[in-house]
Amino acid sequence: MLRADAVPAQTLRERLLHAGLLIETGVEGVYGHSAAFETVLAGCNAYAGRMGAADGAEVLRFPPLLNRTVAERNRYAAAFPQLGGHVFSFDGDDDDHQRYVGKLLRGEDCSCELTMTRSVLTPAACYPVYPALAARGPLPAGGCVIDVLGECFRHEPSAETARLQSFRMREYIYLGDAGRALAFRDLWMERSAGLLRDLDLPGELAVAHDPFFGRLGARLADAQVDRKLKMELVIPIGPDARPTACMSFNCHLDHFASIWDLTQADGTVAHTACVGFGLERLTLALFSRHGLAVAAWPAGLRGALGL
Amino acid sequence: MLRADAVPAQTLRERLLHAGLLIETGVEGVYGHSAAFETVLAGCNAYAGRMGAADGAEVLRFPPLLNRTVAERNRYAAAFPQLGGHVFSFDGDDDDHQRYVGKLLRGEDCSCELTMTRSVLTPAACYPVYPALAARGPLPAGGCVIDVLGECFRHEPSAETARLQSFRMREYIYLGDAGRALAFRDLWMERSAGLLRDLDLPGELAVAHDPFFGRLGARLADAQVDRKLKMELVIPIGPDARPTACMSFNCHLDHFASIWDLTQADGTVAHTACVGFGLERLTLALFSRHGLAVAAWPAGLRGALGL
Repeated sequence: MLRADAVPAQTLRERLLHAGLLIETGVEGVYGHSAAFETVLAGCNAYAGRMGAADGAEVLRFPPLLNRTVAERNRYAAAFPQLGGHVFSFDGDDDDHQRYVGKLLRGEDCSCELTMTRSVLTPAACYPVYPALAARGPLPAGGCVIDVLGECFRHEPSAETARLQSFRMREYIYLGDAGRALAFRDLWMERSAGLLRDLDLPGELAVAHDPFFGRLGARLADAQVDRKLKMELVIPIGPDARPTACMSFNCHLDHFASIWDLTQADGTVAHTACVGFGLERLTLALFSRHGLAVAAWPAGLRGALGL
Repeated sequence: MLRADAVPAQTLRERLLHAGLLIETGVEGVYGHSAAFETVLAGCNAYAGRMGAADGAEVLRFPPLLNRTVAERNRYAAAFPQLGGHVFSFDGDDDDHQRYVGKLLRGEDCSCELTMTRSVLTPAACYPVYPALAARGPLPAGGCVIDVLGECFRHEPSAETARLQSFRMREYIYLGDAGRALAFRDLWMERSAGLLRDLDLPGELAVAHDPFFGRLGARLADAQVDRKLKMELVIPIGPDARPTACMSFNCHLDHFASIWDLTQADGTVAHTACVGFGLERLTLALFSRHGLAVAAWPAGLRGALGL
């Protein structure tokens, strides 16, 4: 149920653009943001930090670029080829440059003037964590929790307000034993009820699956759903109250740990789990639910966000 | 002159990696960062914000992706083809996917399985500002100042500690009349003396040029130097005290304004100028100068950074 002063659903994107909270870039799902939008997003990020404060996580931050070999070793292109972003650059001489610029001026396709670099765009904030932790050797006894925040990319151009190509993801990742990994994931699902209450947002937990590609992908998705390995906190956004995943809670079992030889203190293979916050989506959910004028939001909500 | 407790110059990168302040990703010039590194970087960013507070800038934030047509209209590929990053993605069906994954598994070149998307990586934080401001119509009387902070990309893989492919740039951009644009640039050069004093950093202003490509580029660089359109604050970093541009002060004349039809209130073409802070480089300069233990830094320095 949207509040009486909530933004009418059929015009959320247009109203956010008109209010200057979102700024068009001409690419679907890529927006600039105003100070007010950023302040609310920072409040959501700080709230997420308080939710996880008891876990004593180690803070790591990575840039938007990921080593291409990490994506390859994670078999990202096998599972999600349609979402990946590869960085290409020009590596030629003066003559190549003349040909390249000539094509650009004539409006011709320049793709073959560019070559693949060693970087891809990070698809999920936790991806650089596994090789970084593996490089340290066995995990500490009892495992550990890592806190990351990063700009992520998924190539899914769309006019849907909350379907972004470029977005910020805050994540907590547990690496350690199987039982604690599952307990970590379940604890965060419990914690998410507090988020809905404090931010006065409607929402519910739902069984979900990753957007695996193609015929084989449909079977992978079914298996993921059957085992309830991926759960999401879905919150209605926009005039049609479209349920939108704003948090996800993921059991990886030993998927990443096996790929990266992540072992526990006793030498056995680790399990991992993560919880992710889609910070733009949480921010959009707040504007959708509470209206565009932050100063008019309930005092308790503003307090929870530090506004 | 490095302080007695400063990091010996020949080992800065190695010591930062060993201390966990930088984290290897396997790609040259792409590093993860620890909480301590991020705290110092956030302090530099907040200091930059206080330096610009009197200007009443409008805050805008953009993601790491730039509309490809913006880069093309700015003729980025003509001037800096070697630095640009283009985002490519997979746009095929199940059969294409099988061929793509097969090539990956055999370690073959997959470049031609990917196609150019509508996005490039943002090379400078101010690039998305010009089209966004142009879309609003003529500038306000007296012009305006915009405050941006963004993840930028330049494809220049290097083992030099301070030469990064992915880095954060804080910028203030003035858009308005020619005289005020020049005065804005000169005011920021004066302000930079305060930064050196407050952060206890050695450094000096130097005439500079952009890294234009190739034979024609050398002539463009000469012209830029002759007219002193680009100045830099260079600070020694590392054991060999390599002078490193940590801020830049740029007069664009009507270059961007002409491309984007940015007009003043009276209808004449605007001039623009910008000042940029390389936040990773300022942070590295502080660690190079003051040592790796932030708690041991002078109280005045920690105060200036809010640490």
